[in-house]
Amino acid sequence: MFKELMKNVEEKNPLTHCITNYVTVNDCANILLAAKASPIMADDIEEVEEIVSIYQALVINIGTLNSRTVKSMIVAGKRANKLNIPVILDPVGIGASKLRRKSIDEILKEVEFSVIRGNISEIKALHNGFTNTKGVDASNNDEIKEENIEKIIELAKNLSKKTKSIISISGKIDVIASENKAYLCRNGNSIMPLITGTGCMLSSLIGAYIGANPNNILESTLNANVLMGISGELAYEKMIKNNAGTMSFRNYLIDEVYKMNYEKIKEFSKIESK
Amino acid sequence: MFKELMKNVEEKNPLTHCITNYVTVNDCANILLAAKASPIMADDIEEVEEIVSIYQALVINIGTLNSRTVKSMIVAGKRANKLNIPVILDPVGIGASKLRRKSIDEILKEVEFSVIRGNISEIKALHNGFTNTKGVDASNNDEIKEENIEKIIELAKNLSKKTKSIISISGKIDVIASENKAYLCRNGNSIMPLITGTGCMLSSLIGAYIGANPNNILESTLNANVLMGISGELAYEKMIKNNAGTMSFRNYLIDEVYKMNYEKIKEFSKIESK
Amino acid sequence: MFKELMKNVEEKNPLTHCITNYVTVNDCANILLAAKASPIMADDIEEVEEIVSIYQALVINIGTLNSRTVKSMIVAGKRANKLNIPVILDPVGIGASKLRRKSIDEILKEVEFSVIRGNISEIKALHNGFTNTKGVDASNNDEIKEENIEKIIELAKNLSKKTKSIISISGKIDVIASENKAYLCRNGNSIMPLITGTGCMLSSLIGAYIGANPNNILESTLNANVLMGISGELAYEKMIKNNAGTMSFRNYLIDEVYKMNYEKIKEFSKIESK
Repeated sequence: MFKELMKNVEEKNPLTHCITNYVTVNDCANILLAAKASPIMADDIEEVEEIVSIYQALVINIGTLNSRTVKSMIVAGKRANKLNIPVILDPVGIGASKLRRKSIDEILKEVEFSVIRGNISEIKALHNGFTNTKGVDASNNDEIKEENIEKIIELAKNLSKKTKSIISISGKIDVIASENKAYLCRNGNSIMPLITGTGCMLSSLIGAYIGANPNNILESTLNANVLMGISGELAYEKMIKNNAGTMSFRNYLIDEVYKMNYEKIKEFSKIESK
Repeated sequence: MFKELMKNVEEKNPLTHCITNYVTVNDCANILLAAKASPIMADDIEEVEEIVSIYQALVINIGTLNSRTVKSMIVAGKRANKLNIPVILDPVGIGASKLRRKSIDEILKEVEFSVIRGNISEIKALHNGFTNTKGVDASNNDEIKEENIEKIIELAKNLSKKTKSIISISGKIDVIASENKAYLCRNGNSIMPLITGTGCMLSSLIGAYIGANPNNILESTLNANVLMGISGELAYEKMIKNNAGTMSFRNYLIDEVYKMNYEKIKEFSKIESK
Repeated sequence: MFKELMKNVEEKNPLTHCITNYVTVNDCANILLAAKASPIMADDIEEVEEIVSIYQALVINIGTLNSRTVKSMIVAGKRANKLNIPVILDPVGIGASKLRRKSIDEILKEVEFSVIRGNISEIKALHNGFTNTKGVDASNNDEIKEENIEKIIELAKNLSKKTKSIISISGKIDVIASENKAYLCRNGNSIMPLITGTGCMLSSLIGAYIGANPNNILESTLNANVLMGISGELAYEKMIKNNAGTMSFRNYLIDEVYKMNYEKIKEFSKIESK
């Protein structure tokens, strides 16, 4: 299935509008370009409606949110919904502050998302908000392992039902789920959390993939996860070979996205359907 | 002519004040340092007048403009004009929104620019604003080719006349024009648009070059174009040799600016006077 | 002494909250991760108090300050003081504008800092503010050399007494001083000022080190200086070996922080106690 999805990205060069944080914005722009998508980063409330309307996808990332940008996110998201442009939400650090919780609640009330992507802590925090569960799970539970994978799949499907969004959870095993179907992706490398922005970059890539493939949101999201994971594996090999460190890893990661093709995806992907 | 211009940059280490976007700001600072200029990125309206007055050049880039920063751009630009400090405008994505169009119109009403630099779409959008031409050219015309180069030179000279600015158009062939004279620069590599910020970085470099050579704006602008183009060629060679990708290319590009010298400029420059 | 300090950082993974500038924010996040700390960059006034209260250290950097973020700095800093969370100040470019001077004065009135780190010009500007000395020293005096090192140590101790902060001055020779004791660190490489953000990155690293070692602020600050200096030396060697330039140097620098260990610190550190 990936052959067609990747071809669409490469040929359509999907215009991807990101309202995102200032920490990883440069990496997000560069990974989008490396994947042959075309990014614009614009967050002023006076222009986001107009810009999103000529774009193929909208990425909303609350990594360094403030009151000014939250308003822009809502306005752009509603406009995208009206025009059937897919929107992805990255609820960065939703558990870290009431402001983030409140902003996400506001955004979710106004905007429908094709995809929500986060790490397991973020997705749990989001899920708990919906189920009125209080308290935060012990942090040692906040890891995706073979032993708890079935529970996490259930949580993802449940959240997908509630939000009408594809849920993409990043971790040692990635879980990508709709209400009824889930995929696992075992690609990636444990060094990835040691650079900033792997999550943000993946969300941007998913934006490009769903922008070019709006009728196949689940598999497009999976494809972006696989692409990111394999790029991480190849980048890690190069880092070790070059006796390099994490910053070189970041560069190699984006290099590998640029050099990716369907043959490598086919050869290296480790996916499972649930 | 480049020998003297480059020497001035290296010896004067021109202080270059950038009011710029948060996507590529780090690359702009690093390329300025690589070229032996000294950058400051400051955009608060309470300090920009004071800062620009001790600087040698001002770079205004609207890549992620908002109402707060547009005001700072105007205030800083007017102050620079009063002090005869050269100012360069990069009208990033001027065609993408009414806000950008409106902001640029406002800025151009208040500030005189020594140089305006953009890609051909941006320069055409700017030109059309002046001539009241409606409609946007078909995108396949928005490329600088040998076949349409004469028309683009005419457009550049015409816009230069209207704005009293040197016009620097970036593309497969760069066009650098005053009202009466134009230079073509055929340096560069087609991979350059596959990283974010090559345009922003070039605008910053032009800032440093005109800051160190305020009496020779046209040739300084050309020099920065040649420097960027050759650096792109050398960086691409290294990327291929190292089996790397676009993010490594970005790093090599700035590396090559750091390693540049007059001898390489003399050997590799492909310029033509029109 | 460094063995224990480094172990604490590696094992505690200190959560480091940065309110910092948008130029070097990505490098700061990546160097913190490379040192095994855990960064969050958050500056909205509605969330900074809440965030800092779950963090181990707060880094305040005025590189691209504006009125919105200065308020957040004060609110977060006061909260950190109340909770005995160490706070470090990086008064970037304090001499460049009245706004910076005024903002720093305001911040220093409200917030107590465990550490203040800057280059010699910044520290002198800060010191002069306290002593009502007018005029700025000639710039050729603004360098730390063997000939003027005793004077600078005195200045640092004096400023430490006035601010009740450890003073960390970066230059050819780093000076790290309390009221009564000073360390010199002769590690580092003269290429470091040719990339943007070495100062900001060091301030972030100090944040992580004092966050993990709140009872040993002076030696933790020294440790971060030594770590940065040695990483710079090793990165420069690699840059020369690879015939690379400044942008690769930036990447290697963070790589070396990631690859650092106590044995290298012991072998390469050049410190002197005064």
